[in-house]
Amino acid sequence: MTAVESVGEFRFECGESVPDLRLAYETYGEFDGCAAGTAASERTESASNAVLVCHALTGSQHVSNAPRSEEHDADAVGGDEGDGDDATATTGVQTAGQARAWWDDVVGPGKAIDTTEYYVVCVNVPGSCYGSSGPPSEGPDGEPWGTDFPPVTIGDWTRAQRRLLDRIGVGRLHAVVGGSAGGMNALDWAKRYPDDVRRVAAVAAAARLDTQCLSLDAIARRAITTDPNWNGGDYYGADRPNPDDGLAQARRIGHVMYLSKASMARKFGRRAAGRGAFDDAPPDPTARFFPYREAESYLDYNADSFTGRFDANSYLYLTRAMDEYDLAAGCGSDAEALAAFEGELLALSFTGDWHFAVEESRLLAGAARDADVPAAHHVVESDHGHDAFLVEPESVGPPLHDFLADGVDGRAVRDEDDPEPSNGGSGSPERAPVHASLFPG
Amino acid sequence: MTAVESVGEFRFECGESVPDLRLAYETYGEFDGCAAGTAASERTESASNAVLVCHALTGSQHVSNAPRSEEHDADAVGGDEGDGDDATATTGVQTAGQARAWWDDVVGPGKAIDTTEYYVVCVNVPGSCYGSSGPPSEGPDGEPWGTDFPPVTIGDWTRAQRRLLDRIGVGRLHAVVGGSAGGMNALDWAKRYPDDVRRVAAVAAAARLDTQCLSLDAIARRAITTDPNWNGGDYYGADRPNPDDGLAQARRIGHVMYLSKASMARKFGRRAAGRGAFDDAPPDPTARFFPYREAESYLDYNADSFTGRFDANSYLYLTRAMDEYDLAAGCGSDAEALAAFEGELLALSFTGDWHFAVEESRLLAGAARDADVPAAHHVVESDHGHDAFLVEPESVGPPLHDFLADGVDGRAVRDEDDPEPSNGGSGSPERAPVHASLFPG
Repeated sequence: MTAVESVGEFRFECGESVPDLRLAYETYGEFDGCAAGTAASERTESASNAVLVCHALTGSQHVSNAPRSEEHDADAVGGDEGDGDDATATTGVQTAGQARAWWDDVVGPGKAIDTTEYYVVCVNVPGSCYGSSGPPSEGPDGEPWGTDFPPVTIGDWTRAQRRLLDRIGVGRLHAVVGGSAGGMNALDWAKRYPDDVRRVAAVAAAARLDTQCLSLDAIARRAITTDPNWNGGDYYGADRPNPDDGLAQARRIGHVMYLSKASMARKFGRRAAGRGAFDDAPPDPTARFFPYREAESYLDYNADSFTGRFDANSYLYLTRAMDEYDLAAGCGSDAEALAAFEGELLALSFTGDWHFAVEESRLLAGAARDADVPAAHHVVESDHGHDAFLVEPESVGPPLHDFLADGVDGRAVRDEDDPEPSNGGSGSPERAPVHASLFPG
Repeated sequence: MTAVESVGEFRFECGESVPDLRLAYETYGEFDGCAAGTAASERTESASNAVLVCHALTGSQHVSNAPRSEEHDADAVGGDEGDGDDATATTGVQTAGQARAWWDDVVGPGKAIDTTEYYVVCVNVPGSCYGSSGPPSEGPDGEPWGTDFPPVTIGDWTRAQRRLLDRIGVGRLHAVVGGSAGGMNALDWAKRYPDDVRRVAAVAAAARLDTQCLSLDAIARRAITTDPNWNGGDYYGADRPNPDDGLAQARRIGHVMYLSKASMARKFGRRAAGRGAFDDAPPDPTARFFPYREAESYLDYNADSFTGRFDANSYLYLTRAMDEYDLAAGCGSDAEALAAFEGELLALSFTGDWHFAVEESRLLAGAARDADVPAAHHVVESDHGHDAFLVEPESVGPPLHDFLADGVDGRAVRDEDDPEPSNGGSGSPERAPVHASLFPG
């Protein structure tokens, strides 16, 4: 069950403030570490079993179906216990609905991030719509903030998480782990609070988004802002339609980014959708001679369920935050940004991922080494595209588990440049097959 | 100057007909070959210097600024003489406006497709909007056809071209050359009229579109059909707004497909657009803390100029045709589809192209060889993405020139599998650098 904690007035990086930032979060396992309030200098000396897990763009605090910790009973709000199917996610997202437990295969008792060992915290980021303050949440005038909500950055996510952890008594973290935009969030911890975390794992992430993905995000936002129902961001209220067409388009674009050429070819090929296909296509007389294909059905189905669980303004806010993120900002280089970090870094990438490509993680790990941060770049051969970090727990789990336990020397952590991987694997670092999944078949 | 020829009643593959199909076309150079009306069996014996050039999805018959042939003076219509900048293209596309000469660097006197040697014909495909019959052209009731125009296929393009060539006295072709969807059109010639063409060059093309690009096309169409101004396809008339928002979105998605990660990174990086940037973004308060980037400015500029020169319904029709195309359709395999073709095939691909990837051309050339068609797969190392076929005449020209002159044994035609390329090049067929441009420099 989600708890909601107020962390008081919060000034965002843009300079705007909210009088009372509320953060929805979940915790799993039992905390045994040093308390908040411990001075940073002491924190670096003391251990804790706290692991902050950072969700991706449209994720939520509901990372696992594992038993929740008992000690925090702030404003508890109802949460959906989705079983892994987007379509079963609750509606009413504008207050407290949650997506399915998005990393249940990785986080839980006996799993890679073992909640019998670690105290796992996951916080819905400011600007989102799963109970934390954001555009659809109630503003000072009792109406939804809408676009009056301050623009948010990933730095704001990190600062808000730090504030929340302080409130719930968690000082230094054993690790911060995040995937996709959550991986950027994890990197920001290493830069912003270098003494507060021992191990940072950035999964399917990068120091910044590349130009191609920036462009696709801009197109996705444009789909929302040109939907007449968006209405300048002012569409809340039972009597007003949501900009579902625009948000659905944004989500379709997202799903193409999350898959690979190979996975799309394998899943759908060019097949026409058969009986039971999801078809929300508007009447289109120009389609009368052509099939509705499985690929389109997949996109439509997921887009439709997404509009039932996410807020269009939040999508604008959070993609802006992701696009703006640049690890090197204010530092000159990624290495300088990581220079003060005393912990270790794992960059975990997937060969079929073109949203956050292998090369980006390679550069990230290189920058960490340039900053004398022990770093490993673990490449998973996969044709699942960006989605691999969610759908391949068997690939993600072992290196993550061993990195949390033993850092970059963890048994299952295989650095692509290490000629003799500690796990005895036979990967050939000279010819990492990083591109194999770009092509079908 | 464009000519328009009526080819009479035309029944499309879908089964629907139009009473009078009109085709806009241009010709360059002087025809010296065998006349139409020659029996197919004789055509195979006789030579001609006619080269049919097939335009891409949103291209036109205006392939070159070279002097036009004089002999045809069918209904001449005014044409724009754009100088290579989309934004200078004429409006009034619904009757006769044309995009810029899209392959002027490749087609012309002394150029790769030398109009002092060849008689070059380029036909605006049915369904398009540059003077040929299509949704925006006048239907039997004197009003624009709109979505009553029959759905078109690439097979229809080929059949219409055959009809037009018969009308203007061109029998057997020396070659058919096409890029992108035009390359599919060229392949369809080898399948449909195997005795009518000696050499077929498919540039940046494939036997069929892959699932990922099918999906992006479907998203692009959805952008149009969810634009309220589209109005079910009925938006013609001075008093009605065009679905420009939707068409612009479709074009933005297209431009991302036409570039590569590397070319976008190089051209735009993450830079904010400076003075003189094109900014047609609608007011978006959520953007107040974030830059308008060069990449977005590029997409907006090109999307805006595109809406001034292209018809939204035509975009729906032509992407449907491209998506539906499958060389193997009705034949069982690509090789069987090419089995009757007695000529030679060049597949020309570009390493940075993810719209029509190198691997697709590789498979195509392999299928041709399986059918005993002499074939070469010439790979151009380029980070320009799909646009390379338009913007790298220095790479495209020599192999194309030599293929037209000498077939697959042409001096500059370098097959990737040929260990001793005839041009003495040093390409390593074992490790073709097909993926290098996917990642930013």
